[in-house]
Amino acid sequence: MITASTTTIGFIGLGVMGKSMVKNLMEAGYSLNVYTRTKSKAEELLDLGADWHDSPADLAKVSDVIITMVGYPEDVQKVYFGDGGILKNAQKGTYVVDMTTSKPSLAIDIYEEAKKQGLIALDAPVSGGDIGAKNGTLAIMAGGDKEAYHEMMPIFHVLGERIALLGPAAAGQHTKMANQIAIATNMIGVCESIIYARKAGLDAEEVLATISTGAAASFSLSNLGKRMLEKDYEPGFYVKHFIKDMEIALESAHHIGMPAPGLELALNLYKKLADMGEADSGTQALIKLLAYEAELTL
Amino acid sequence: MITASTTTIGFIGLGVMGKSMVKNLMEAGYSLNVYTRTKSKAEELLDLGADWHDSPADLAKVSDVIITMVGYPEDVQKVYFGDGGILKNAQKGTYVVDMTTSKPSLAIDIYEEAKKQGLIALDAPVSGGDIGAKNGTLAIMAGGDKEAYHEMMPIFHVLGERIALLGPAAAGQHTKMANQIAIATNMIGVCESIIYARKAGLDAEEVLATISTGAAASFSLSNLGKRMLEKDYEPGFYVKHFIKDMEIALESAHHIGMPAPGLELALNLYKKLADMGEADSGTQALIKLLAYEAELTL
Repeated sequence: MITASTTTIGFIGLGVMGKSMVKNLMEAGYSLNVYTRTKSKAEELLDLGADWHDSPADLAKVSDVIITMVGYPEDVQKVYFGDGGILKNAQKGTYVVDMTTSKPSLAIDIYEEAKKQGLIALDAPVSGGDIGAKNGTLAIMAGGDKEAYHEMMPIFHVLGERIALLGPAAAGQHTKMANQIAIATNMIGVCESIIYARKAGLDAEEVLATISTGAAASFSLSNLGKRMLEKDYEPGFYVKHFIKDMEIALESAHHIGMPAPGLELALNLYKKLADMGEADSGTQALIKLLAYEAELTL
Repeated sequence: MITASTTTIGFIGLGVMGKSMVKNLMEAGYSLNVYTRTKSKAEELLDLGADWHDSPADLAKVSDVIITMVGYPEDVQKVYFGDGGILKNAQKGTYVVDMTTSKPSLAIDIYEEAKKQGLIALDAPVSGGDIGAKNGTLAIMAGGDKEAYHEMMPIFHVLGERIALLGPAAAGQHTKMANQIAIATNMIGVCESIIYARKAGLDAEEVLATISTGAAASFSLSNLGKRMLEKDYEPGFYVKHFIKDMEIALESAHHIGMPAPGLELALNLYKKLADMGEADSGTQALIKLLAYEAELTL
């Protein structure tokens, strides 16, 4: 049984989100082993009492639960598989939980290989961004076996608020994809709507206030639309990561046999935006591309 | 000054929304003159005490305020212009208010011709659908002169709740277009998201519950997504009317010099949907087209 006083968690990937998640787990009383590619990113956590390990293999050998929160599917592949990976080195009975937004097909590979090795795998990508990670209010979308999911609940409750098991292995990743697909296409509409208002000579702030509580209402319109008008392009969520998610979603959509013209359009627009040098901006920067094409000065 | 006891309102266009609006105005104490193409649609209102007139011209001659709520820009054109139209027949000082969702360019034509005739015009399209019309909770987006807008407030307050003047003539129509643009593209994302969940073998209802309160949240996802899952295609808002709005929006977008790839994609998909025989369904029926293309049985 997982309890803060008896369970040691190995955490791999200490980006903005991973770091906050580790802090919350330590505050909840868990012992933490950490590894990340760039050791300097771990310093603050080591000062707080986390134990550094020089490789995923070393960390895996001494952890009861292993959580991964890395960047791209290639990184997930690398930390799980191969001789130096988690799956070959974790002790039997270890829980391995990938919280990276990654490929559904890879989640299934991990689940199956873990089973062979006597490990228990879950996919559990999150939404809620850096703020959700910091405040422990992430939404956690899990896929895998029910028993494992229930076992992990004490940890999930430290990290998040809306937590759900959506089905067997990969169901968490698939749900995250459904989430990103809904956001992706809506972002185009939010930008076109604001640019239309500006090009028509209206006060875009007033228009936004008027339309954002009716049938056009959306989280993106209210929150990112507002940032667009303030010319605040700071990343709540990076363009480059959104592109990664959309690429996974589109590949997965084609794999399960559905056309997704809205998603495809969104991905193409965001790739153009990245080519304009905006890969490290927040997703709301999409308005820059559409404004440019409409010859509108923001 | 407009007051219920002294002002006679002429109302043209007694569709589902127009009828409810007239009822609310009568309940508020206004005297009503009515005209609509198909007289039988007026019967209930005549029983309630409204006065029938055989043409827009006849109605215009004896009304202090004239409100139009017809179908298409061609209908607006017809009731306002020409020898039998409102503008040639209303008394000087009459307020003419087009609440139809119609072309911004036509709103300007009406405003200018009205001025020449000594009339005062406002464009004031609404959102909120038949339920908003019935409950007097419409959002009203007005364009025109400030003074005229403030004069009309007693009437607007009977019909709606969120009421705003967005700028000079056509600003109301432009704002409504910004509203429809935001909705149009989002609808694609809502459908693709639900179809993805279904094709991935997930419980779409659970996925919807999970993603509809986070960054993917939108009115359409929560409300129309739900109807999609219930296979409820009853029109809250007709596909054919949405197509009209998107056609106006796209024409207007091109007129003001902006590309709108999201809107264009949405319009094309909805036209295909109408070709499938769904013109009289609600806008949530878009999922039928995308499900068909994904070979998914709903």
